[in-house]
Amino acid sequence: MIETDISRLIIEQYTQRMTEHLDNDVVIVGAGPAGLAAGYYLAKSKVKVTIIEKKLSIGGGIWGGAAGYNVVTFEDTQILEEIGVTTQKHGQLYTADAIEFATALAYKTKKAGTEIFNLLEAEDIVLKDETVKGIVVNNASASTLGLHIDPFCICAKYMIDATGHPAELVSMLRQRKPELFPTELLEYFMNVETSEAGVVEKTGEVFPGLYIAGMAVCDVYNLPRMGPIFGGMLKSGKKVAELIYERLRSSNT
Amino acid sequence: MIETDISRLIIEQYTQRMTEHLDNDVVIVGAGPAGLAAGYYLAKSKVKVTIIEKKLSIGGGIWGGAAGYNVVTFEDTQILEEIGVTTQKHGQLYTADAIEFATALAYKTKKAGTEIFNLLEAEDIVLKDETVKGIVVNNASASTLGLHIDPFCICAKYMIDATGHPAELVSMLRQRKPELFPTELLEYFMNVETSEAGVVEKTGEVFPGLYIAGMAVCDVYNLPRMGPIFGGMLKSGKKVAELIYERLRSSNT
Amino acid sequence: MIETDISRLIIEQYTQRMTEHLDNDVVIVGAGPAGLAAGYYLAKSKVKVTIIEKKLSIGGGIWGGAAGYNVVTFEDTQILEEIGVTTQKHGQLYTADAIEFATALAYKTKKAGTEIFNLLEAEDIVLKDETVKGIVVNNASASTLGLHIDPFCICAKYMIDATGHPAELVSMLRQRKPELFPTELLEYFMNVETSEAGVVEKTGEVFPGLYIAGMAVCDVYNLPRMGPIFGGMLKSGKKVAELIYERLRSSNT
Amino acid sequence: MIETDISRLIIEQYTQRMTEHLDNDVVIVGAGPAGLAAGYYLAKSKVKVTIIEKKLSIGGGIWGGAAGYNVVTFEDTQILEEIGVTTQKHGQLYTADAIEFATALAYKTKKAGTEIFNLLEAEDIVLKDETVKGIVVNNASASTLGLHIDPFCICAKYMIDATGHPAELVSMLRQRKPELFPTELLEYFMNVETSEAGVVEKTGEVFPGLYIAGMAVCDVYNLPRMGPIFGGMLKSGKKVAELIYERLRSSNT
Amino acid sequence: MIETDISRLIIEQYTQRMTEHLDNDVVIVGAGPAGLAAGYYLAKSKVKVTIIEKKLSIGGGIWGGAAGYNVVTFEDTQILEEIGVTTQKHGQLYTADAIEFATALAYKTKKAGTEIFNLLEAEDIVLKDETVKGIVVNNASASTLGLHIDPFCICAKYMIDATGHPAELVSMLRQRKPELFPTELLEYFMNVETSEAGVVEKTGEVFPGLYIAGMAVCDVYNLPRMGPIFGGMLKSGKKVAELIYERLRSSNT
Amino acid sequence: MIETDISRLIIEQYTQRMTEHLDNDVVIVGAGPAGLAAGYYLAKSKVKVTIIEKKLSIGGGIWGGAAGYNVVTFEDTQILEEIGVTTQKHGQLYTADAIEFATALAYKTKKAGTEIFNLLEAEDIVLKDETVKGIVVNNASASTLGLHIDPFCICAKYMIDATGHPAELVSMLRQRKPELFPTELLEYFMNVETSEAGVVEKTGEVFPGLYIAGMAVCDVYNLPRMGPIFGGMLKSGKKVAELIYERLRSSNT
Amino acid sequence: MIETDISRLIIEQYTQRMTEHLDNDVVIVGAGPAGLAAGYYLAKSKVKVTIIEKKLSIGGGIWGGAAGYNVVTFEDTQILEEIGVTTQKHGQLYTADAIEFATALAYKTKKAGTEIFNLLEAEDIVLKDETVKGIVVNNASASTLGLHIDPFCICAKYMIDATGHPAELVSMLRQRKPELFPTELLEYFMNVETSEAGVVEKTGEVFPGLYIAGMAVCDVYNLPRMGPIFGGMLKSGKKVAELIYERLRSSNT
Amino acid sequence: MIETDISRLIIEQYTQRMTEHLDNDVVIVGAGPAGLAAGYYLAKSKVKVTIIEKKLSIGGGIWGGAAGYNVVTFEDTQILEEIGVTTQKHGQLYTADAIEFATALAYKTKKAGTEIFNLLEAEDIVLKDETVKGIVVNNASASTLGLHIDPFCICAKYMIDATGHPAELVSMLRQRKPELFPTELLEYFMNVETSEAGVVEKTGEVFPGLYIAGMAVCDVYNLPRMGPIFGGMLKSGKKVAELIYERLRSSNT
Repeated sequence: MIETDISRLIIEQYTQRMTEHLDNDVVIVGAGPAGLAAGYYLAKSKVKVTIIEKKLSIGGGIWGGAAGYNVVTFEDTQILEEIGVTTQKHGQLYTADAIEFATALAYKTKKAGTEIFNLLEAEDIVLKDETVKGIVVNNASASTLGLHIDPFCICAKYMIDATGHPAELVSMLRQRKPELFPTELLEYFMNVETSEAGVVEKTGEVFPGLYIAGMAVCDVYNLPRMGPIFGGMLKSGKKVAELIYERLRSSNT
Repeated sequence: MIETDISRLIIEQYTQRMTEHLDNDVVIVGAGPAGLAAGYYLAKSKVKVTIIEKKLSIGGGIWGGAAGYNVVTFEDTQILEEIGVTTQKHGQLYTADAIEFATALAYKTKKAGTEIFNLLEAEDIVLKDETVKGIVVNNASASTLGLHIDPFCICAKYMIDATGHPAELVSMLRQRKPELFPTELLEYFMNVETSEAGVVEKTGEVFPGLYIAGMAVCDVYNLPRMGPIFGGMLKSGKKVAELIYERLRSSNT
Repeated sequence: MIETDISRLIIEQYTQRMTEHLDNDVVIVGAGPAGLAAGYYLAKSKVKVTIIEKKLSIGGGIWGGAAGYNVVTFEDTQILEEIGVTTQKHGQLYTADAIEFATALAYKTKKAGTEIFNLLEAEDIVLKDETVKGIVVNNASASTLGLHIDPFCICAKYMIDATGHPAELVSMLRQRKPELFPTELLEYFMNVETSEAGVVEKTGEVFPGLYIAGMAVCDVYNLPRMGPIFGGMLKSGKKVAELIYERLRSSNT
Repeated sequence: MIETDISRLIIEQYTQRMTEHLDNDVVIVGAGPAGLAAGYYLAKSKVKVTIIEKKLSIGGGIWGGAAGYNVVTFEDTQILEEIGVTTQKHGQLYTADAIEFATALAYKTKKAGTEIFNLLEAEDIVLKDETVKGIVVNNASASTLGLHIDPFCICAKYMIDATGHPAELVSMLRQRKPELFPTELLEYFMNVETSEAGVVEKTGEVFPGLYIAGMAVCDVYNLPRMGPIFGGMLKSGKKVAELIYERLRSSNT
Repeated sequence: MIETDISRLIIEQYTQRMTEHLDNDVVIVGAGPAGLAAGYYLAKSKVKVTIIEKKLSIGGGIWGGAAGYNVVTFEDTQILEEIGVTTQKHGQLYTADAIEFATALAYKTKKAGTEIFNLLEAEDIVLKDETVKGIVVNNASASTLGLHIDPFCICAKYMIDATGHPAELVSMLRQRKPELFPTELLEYFMNVETSEAGVVEKTGEVFPGLYIAGMAVCDVYNLPRMGPIFGGMLKSGKKVAELIYERLRSSNT
Repeated sequence: MIETDISRLIIEQYTQRMTEHLDNDVVIVGAGPAGLAAGYYLAKSKVKVTIIEKKLSIGGGIWGGAAGYNVVTFEDTQILEEIGVTTQKHGQLYTADAIEFATALAYKTKKAGTEIFNLLEAEDIVLKDETVKGIVVNNASASTLGLHIDPFCICAKYMIDATGHPAELVSMLRQRKPELFPTELLEYFMNVETSEAGVVEKTGEVFPGLYIAGMAVCDVYNLPRMGPIFGGMLKSGKKVAELIYERLRSSNT
Repeated sequence: MIETDISRLIIEQYTQRMTEHLDNDVVIVGAGPAGLAAGYYLAKSKVKVTIIEKKLSIGGGIWGGAAGYNVVTFEDTQILEEIGVTTQKHGQLYTADAIEFATALAYKTKKAGTEIFNLLEAEDIVLKDETVKGIVVNNASASTLGLHIDPFCICAKYMIDATGHPAELVSMLRQRKPELFPTELLEYFMNVETSEAGVVEKTGEVFPGLYIAGMAVCDVYNLPRMGPIFGGMLKSGKKVAELIYERLRSSNT
Repeated sequence: MIETDISRLIIEQYTQRMTEHLDNDVVIVGAGPAGLAAGYYLAKSKVKVTIIEKKLSIGGGIWGGAAGYNVVTFEDTQILEEIGVTTQKHGQLYTADAIEFATALAYKTKKAGTEIFNLLEAEDIVLKDETVKGIVVNNASASTLGLHIDPFCICAKYMIDATGHPAELVSMLRQRKPELFPTELLEYFMNVETSEAGVVEKTGEVFPGLYIAGMAVCDVYNLPRMGPIFGGMLKSGKKVAELIYERLRSSNT
């Protein structure tokens, strides 16, 4: 029957994509602006990259703009032009529609070749030889519903924590190795002027195999938060992609 | 300060867009596949159209594919090609990535000129001279949190109920005019072979000023449901757009 | 890495089993005593049979005995002996440990060849030519969490509603065809003396393609309920298995 | 249509008021008795002042009197007479109706020129040059519903934390600068005789740009709490208004 | 000790007010705009009147304006001027600050002599000789927390149901006397042009001893709702006050 | 060890009492004032009687007096004197402390020989030969927690529904035999003058084997409710005891 | 009307009792076995004593016996005989019915003259001259429902913390004066042989004006817990009554 | 009647089993794979052993396989063959059906003679002479529902903490004796290669009378977790059984 044909097709396609992406060059946790941008630039460079997102929908904190006014701002438009987002100039700032920005970024990231799995939650890290080798994932509903279910693993050469303010992967590291991160993982007070440069500068590797990008960088280095201005997120995502791409390229030669 | 400049820009941009779209040619309630497709084709025809969505993110039931396997199926690919979604052919069926489909459809709809407001919930209908003239909307959190707050109105020449299974606008009609819809609003058992044709055929006006599209059609006419095969949704959205466009055009001449 | 090898093995094994069982001779909804017994006897007769259970664990209402006193009773022991459950005789009644009964029944049913999928919920029926052709299933967490996700289908020649008191599949039929089931689906007052015979007698087909077994029979025919005495459940499961087996055999010849 | 005229008027009026008050002389967080009194006296002195309140209604802990007996007490009546609240004398104490007190205070504060926005929650501080320059606000439903939405900013020359026992703004400071507030933010045991004088005396600036008033003072300095006697709250609000007014006046000359 | 002096004063004052107001000329249930206006005009005419409100704060649906934009509109300003609310004229409409309107109305109603008890919920009606003689009230937390606690009674010559859309008192009548109110208690679709006149016209007595005012009138007579324009509420409150005042006056002579 | 000695003693004592009381002359469901009074008078007459209460504590709606003011009233004191409750006379009425009344009544009922099991919930009726023969009970936490656990049975010659407003046993009857109770089970409006006599008069058998007492009588016969005056409850409990005692006596001779 | 007569009587009686007991010799927080026993012996000695209980019913942890088996045990019966509880002897131990024990103890305590207020929660301490002078109480629903309502005070010469395992009053002390109670407030592992003697021995004053009794003693001194054997609770309550009585007597001479 | 015969039988059988097992050789807390394996091997050696499980069903984290894919893996099959589980070989790994594994293990453990009580929760430890002598248990619904009910005790010569990641019994020890377990009880990052050997090696006694097995070992010794590969759990359960059996045997001689 066509009903079972459809069911079989979907399950097989999903399984094929999932089993092909159990081993990756890069796994990104979190499909917000920084994670998507990292995925976009890695995939454009032909890196095998997978994003894990625990929510049903993709886009993180973009959709609501500021307090539900669904408009977002930027200080420049280079990456936005690349992904096809219309902007308006107002003095030094540019505005864009939040829904257009969220969908353009996710769409272009997918089109570039990034694999994205939603409804999957990272619950731990695979660690060998003091190097992060993968993430332990579970159906996101298991923790929400308190179901006692074991996880599985998705592995990669490099992992990116793009989970935003919780900095979830770094938190897991810090829980068992508190000496590595002596200050609380916590963004600093808002200061738009200094935050973007700080986030981009500190984007990088924090432990063998584990990179951070986006607001997770603010948490780990106690940098100022920035509010509904998203340029720093995109640049941080782009930078982490470039750092890892260089590393992959040099290790392949 | 730049912090207040950003805040002012966002609030003013949003208010400008919102007040410009309090009067429309068409208002669509629900940003799922049928509502987005209707918005896409109406906007392409230069119709002034606004979509209202109560959730924070856009895309309705697309994101999860079937039971969370994020793959969707289609019986043909014409509209998908138009909006730039990659498909794979498997016998009579085509598959696509659910996230790519959701974001491509929303992105192209926005790019075509549709205005979309998320976090707004339709709580009633404006009715004059026995004709639907607009919808009564509220902050979606007001009903979720049980806050006693009055609504405001967004009006249009024609309204589309694209709210899916609840058929929310038709339900409001039926509550006060039960004689118009004597059978319960309820989709019939699943039958993929007959559902798509039925949904498209019955897409149209159900009360002066009120059209229905997508799964709301199944509810109103007790048609079979179809599951994770989305062609009928797109065609229903396209058809309702064409019906209203013709009507607008003829009334303008 | 071994972590991804394990993950790949599990996902592929599950997918293979699932896709193999999208088409079946029989699908049973509900892994309580009647559903398990039906599966056991069908599998013993080499019928291709799959059980769908929405909970994480199998066994339905057996585990708690009466009010949490985890002991169950029977009026005879024939089926219990067949599946290896120790009983004690007390006058006309036999007792057994509830945990032993639950695990023995599920274990022997699985060993006999029944496929069992937990965490899957039936949310509708596939109906063609006024015959039930399959069930529409979804990840059970989708409805619990209110996630808007489409379902998929598992089909069979015959379906058994073994969902107990809610009589879930029959309820779906009744919602759209109330004339078929004019009285409310509701078990009658308790009366142990008359209930067992009634349940077994009325076990059978209630609509083309749809059989009922166990407490669902009480609901559909308003028969007396029985409490923590489980013989009727086993006999009803056995009877429905025999009825369907005969029908399959005759249609194959 | 009049329905959209009403909607447009309301949205535009609100936006005008909001964008005019993104930059202020003073922003007060919390519309309880101390925050309202501070707003009243600042506005009377022609200071540009805005109050942010996360609840839908204004008045904080006044409405319920003591344990729901809606009567409040005072040790003198000077400010009450100024805002038009009827009192009764009983020995050394005066009583008033809680509802009359709450509405008179809020009404007169509004009439004096204070701008008040309800349903807005302070979620962080804007900090530059080690000085508090503004507050980061969000729709109060975002945190209640766990929606991932970015905030915006409302700025001022001086900020007043009138949030009562949580001392929310001071808590944000203390979380990142624990050395500034070495003792836990916590009011001391009740002692009516000593509390009022203590609260008023300690009302003032606790960090460059940040003042405290009302019960937040008790929390920061571990002073005794006082219960349903509200004179100290009004005097603390009046004092903080005078302190800031002097500072604004001297910096303007 | 002063702590117990304060406690004693508050409890005794409250008890004195409560016991004095167990028998009234009029009891109003609901402290929204219509209930407060009714109380204001009754008290001005020296009628003994008590308002019961189940929430902690007073003002009903005024505080949030439209969808949280805290601005309200009116078609004329006569009553507003009487209670001291500042308005702005915009074409045919007037706007006012929602917080100013809520607090001015409640403050003036209290000042006029109305007794208001918050945190009390009407749970039934006292009925004798087929006439409503009082209301059965309880601590509003009892029903919220599911505590099994008996109520007490507050009586009056006339009762006003100003509970808004639920029309709570009329619902209690309708539950036991469905023949009196054959249509569902439900406001009709929004239509600002016709709603105000309809509400005011239909304000009046619906059963011996029971009057209705405000949105409850829309529910009972299935009249159009109106949204964030509050003139009809005030006029309905004023009208019900006048009707009852006349009746009281004529019965006293 | 003494710890297991204590455990053994408690479990054995409870089991002995429970198994001794699986067959009774009378089972009362609900340990509020009417149920306790019925138990008291039956036990005094040496009838074997058991009370089932789903809550952890005994006393039903007595504890909170009126709206939490823990005082109760009576029109006479005969039964109160018998059970040792101190009263005060105020005109035609008597008051007593609610806690004293609750504990005196429960204590004396227990002392008189009534067996009481708390934390047990009646979930159905045992019906044979169109006569109620017992009740189906379960651990009250099973339904609260949604645990799928079977019940057990406690039987008697006569059952008393003393469950108050829900009239739980009668509701079970009515659900399967709606023709027996054509009007909704619902107390009428409050009217203290007529309610007590009505409740006592109508106390009695409503179906072979099933008696009602207390507020359940109001529900079944749509009689006026009465509020925090408890004489009718005691008299209804006493009357049902007398009716059943007579019946038991006559059937024994 | 009689309805308002009843209401007035109840409110006035309650208010009279409450205002009479705002100043006491002793206030006990917690109406479990230790608190009730303390109240019983103090009232027998003509001490003015009030118990505050946050639940609706009285009796604390007695009602459920052990794990819901409603039987309790004792090592001797002297106090039980005094309050009229029937016991059975089993070797070294005595059993009693839990419901009889709870109601007898509460009934006799009330009869002896103790005033008991239920539904009142202690939320803080009144402290003057480094001595506990009273407790700060609130409607227990205020904290449950998160309502922002101020408390009132009930004062006494001596306070008894009989709140059981939380040791609520001592916790309030420890929060502001952690140096007084350096170890966590936590009962030790169960050891029935040593626990009773320990609890009774350590019962006494822990801070000027504040005594502890019952399981709170275990928490403060980290003594072993004991389970469903209640002799120690009664003896601790009796001892604290004797200690305070002696102190009151000596201070009166 | 047969209904009460069934009830009596079940309650008596349960009570007999429970009172017989209040004193044991071994009590195991937790019926997951390690606890069941320990019970299986102890019972096979004729040790008197009881398992306590707080859930209604048995099997712990087995049922869901990995993320709901109900398949489990093993590195060898010796124990699986012993308990009758069908496996498939894939390179170095074996797979089995999760439901078959859960039910086979529980069934064989029960058949071997282990007593299992579900719905019972360990809430503390009995400690005498610095040796664990038993566990303090309660109805699991008491803590879930927040009911204030005392526990009872189940004792044994040796206790096994097989509660998995929470390591509940060890946590209770650590709370009162933090010096014994200076590091947080927390499994380390996943590393399948090293985890199994570590868990088995460290299985053993951690405090006089208290053994640990299964994932609790990972928590106590901060060993790597392993995911859905269950060989280590079975071996740890077998080892702890052997260790205790040797100890019991040597102490008996």
